[in-house]
Amino acid sequence: MTDPVFRKLEIVGTSTVSIEDAIARGVAATATAGETVDWFEVLETRGAVREGKVHQYQVVLKVGVRVRA
Amino acid sequence: MTDPVFRKLEIVGTSTVSIEDAIARGVAATATAGETVDWFEVLETRGAVREGKVHQYQVVLKVGVRVRA
Amino acid sequence: MTDPVFRKLEIVGTSTVSIEDAIARGVAATATAGETVDWFEVLETRGAVREGKVHQYQVVLKVGVRVRA
Amino acid sequence: MTDPVFRKLEIVGTSTVSIEDAIARGVAATATAGETVDWFEVLETRGAVREGKVHQYQVVLKVGVRVRA
Amino acid sequence: MTDPVFRKLEIVGTSTVSIEDAIARGVAATATAGETVDWFEVLETRGAVREGKVHQYQVVLKVGVRVRA
Amino acid sequence: MTDPVFRKLEIVGTSTVSIEDAIARGVAATATAGETVDWFEVLETRGAVREGKVHQYQVVLKVGVRVRA
Amino acid sequence: MTDPVFRKLEIVGTSTVSIEDAIARGVAATATAGETVDWFEVLETRGAVREGKVHQYQVVLKVGVRVRA
Amino acid sequence: MTDPVFRKLEIVGTSTVSIEDAIARGVAATATAGETVDWFEVLETRGAVREGKVHQYQVVLKVGVRVRA
Amino acid sequence: MTDPVFRKLEIVGTSTVSIEDAIARGVAATATAGETVDWFEVLETRGAVREGKVHQYQVVLKVGVRVRA
Amino acid sequence: MTDPVFRKLEIVGTSTVSIEDAIARGVAATATAGETVDWFEVLETRGAVREGKVHQYQVVLKVGVRVRA
Amino acid sequence: MTDPVFRKLEIVGTSTVSIEDAIARGVAATATAGETVDWFEVLETRGAVREGKVHQYQVVLKVGVRVRA
Amino acid sequence: MTDPVFRKLEIVGTSTVSIEDAIARGVAATATAGETVDWFEVLETRGAVREGKVHQYQVVLKVGVRVRA
Repeated sequence: MTDPVFRKLEIVGTSTVSIEDAIARGVAATATAGETVDWFEVLETRGAVREGKVHQYQVVLKVGVRVRA
Repeated sequence: MTDPVFRKLEIVGTSTVSIEDAIARGVAATATAGETVDWFEVLETRGAVREGKVHQYQVVLKVGVRVRA
Repeated sequence: MTDPVFRKLEIVGTSTVSIEDAIARGVAATATAGETVDWFEVLETRGAVREGKVHQYQVVLKVGVRVRA
Repeated sequence: MTDPVFRKLEIVGTSTVSIEDAIARGVAATATAGETVDWFEVLETRGAVREGKVHQYQVVLKVGVRVRA
Repeated sequence: MTDPVFRKLEIVGTSTVSIEDAIARGVAATATAGETVDWFEVLETRGAVREGKVHQYQVVLKVGVRVRA
Repeated sequence: MTDPVFRKLEIVGTSTVSIEDAIARGVAATATAGETVDWFEVLETRGAVREGKVHQYQVVLKVGVRVRA
Repeated sequence: MTDPVFRKLEIVGTSTVSIEDAIARGVAATATAGETVDWFEVLETRGAVREGKVHQYQVVLKVGVRVRA
Repeated sequence: MTDPVFRKLEIVGTSTVSIEDAIARGVAATATAGETVDWFEVLETRGAVREGKVHQYQVVLKVGVRVRA
Repeated sequence: MTDPVFRKLEIVGTSTVSIEDAIARGVAATATAGETVDWFEVLETRGAVREGKVHQYQVVLKVGVRVRA
Repeated sequence: MTDPVFRKLEIVGTSTVSIEDAIARGVAATATAGETVDWFEVLETRGAVREGKVHQYQVVLKVGVRVRA
Repeated sequence: MTDPVFRKLEIVGTSTVSIEDAIARGVAATATAGETVDWFEVLETRGAVREGKVHQYQVVLKVGVRVRA
Repeated sequence: MTDPVFRKLEIVGTSTVSIEDAIARGVAATATAGETVDWFEVLETRGAVREGKVHQYQVVLKVGVRVRA
């Protein structure tokens, strides 16, 4: 009840649209895998470039999930 | 006149919309409190998640303000 | 042929619009200068403030470019 | 036999009592989940405050566990 | 209502008793000064030594306080 | 198809032979566990010493694996 | 009496003369504002350049001040 | 007389009891070795685990000692 | 004559053989481009994996080169 | 016109006189090479010692230069 | 018996052969000086270059040694 | 002959005059103690303040010394 325990998973979300969309995809994939996600922290923002344009945002996240007691 | 002095305040702006909006709210709150804000630096980007979706962006900022001589 | 070598350049892209736009401008300026850009990494996000509003985003990037063999 | 491999999990233990108790709870929850825990490393110590008093210690740990060969 | 703003203050709490007591004193001093404290983060733990014994724990904290809207 | 998601696992590979061998063993153990490994990043290089000689290299790695969609 | 509490303020002192002078100006401005300053720590040293010459040193400081009990 | 010089030694104190006890043992061992210890700084807190319980705290310290003039 | 100036370039050397070979290739490519290289510093060691095996080492280097007076 | 782009070069200035002089020499060498330097940031201060005396200050700088549009 | 204390020494091992050889030489020199070395940690890998080739690897190590009780 | 080994000592030099003087005093004290000092690296610059003025510079140094073979 009290004193919960959490786990932090490191996830790389990617998107061709925006940084926020890459975060959303990383968070959603973790939730779809059955985890209860409480928060995220951005560790790194990077991306792939093609012909002088940003082709893909890659956002490295820590995702905080509840450990089932 | 010459040799100004600045102070850097650490602020957490939050927004349900975007990272840029969270920055704007942190900066605006500092200005509303009577400070003359010159620049900001993002220290951390994080947020809260509900039901697998980003519910709130939380952006930790350093905000540079002028010290009145 | 195999074992390529890359160089990483440090660039500051700026924009009055968004963080993504500042990244795009930094990457585009590097490509326009004749480099083949493969990827970018965000090092710092900061900006200038005027009258309590974000006036300019300044994003410090590492940009990975191919070294011509 | 020789050359073991380990995995490091990131865990947040919490406690209303002390920092040591928060560590113990994070370690115990990992062991209860079936992992053989060999060591821990404290990454961050933080906590929640209510009415001017520390309400909960939150200790972010790396926990080293053996990978079964 | 929504989208709160916080400020993070850097405080050094000291105690001759324990690390937890130094944290408590730093947090309490901030609350006594009229701030609504929500959370703390430990940045550094250090201390003074006299005659080969720990004389005083000094804990550097970030303390998160609510900005009144 | 587009917008893949990756997970980064933290692994400690060990070897009595060389740093490269410790990396290879950490990567291989992850692949053997059923993960599709795309890349690795070295976080730390350390080791055990016996009688003034390096007895074992211990290399802490982040290993990037594909999340199955 | 015992167990004092300190606050650390982040200040940017500037000077056209030297790094030491920029530190002195940041410290003096804090004292002039009514704080009892006990120590400083240099976080960053930077500056502005005009026509290939250093025009201004900008030193980012943490300044430790006593919290009045 | 004025302008003293200090040396900082890196010590790992261990204890089966608490973090504070591990610090005390690292400091005491340095004093016993004939050094005049003025202060300590905690660099890392880690430990060994046996059967799901913390068996030993290991605290890495910098210990500041006076250099005899 | 006295008071030389150096530039530090950031280079990524790659190799399918070893970490030392990746360093050598990054250094050699810089020298081939006409720079007088004096030293290198390893910033990151990473690599690509194929079918559970290390396919390519990628070593990020700072390379110190002399600025012609 | 608006939205300028900058490049940051890493330079090591050296001097037998002072830290400020080493900075000035690194900045001046960059300007002499045809760059328009806007600012500098000190990354590292180090130096060579001969017979117990500082022989040379070596200051590692980031130098911000304008990219010609 | 219980609660051992360790010291960590900072050593730079050098070698014209390989990174592993530089580590071995730093560890061996510490053991030859009469210390009981238990482990090492690599802090930095760097080296000297001559005529476009790596001339010497320089590996900065922390070496953990037992403090005699 | 070839493949020298160095040790890095952590020293705090202090001075009421300047940062350069504090460095010189830390280096000189190490040399006076019988070490052959080759180089120094500044880790931290801090100081004590009295009545709103800098009373003492405290510069934390790594000092590289030759290990006698």
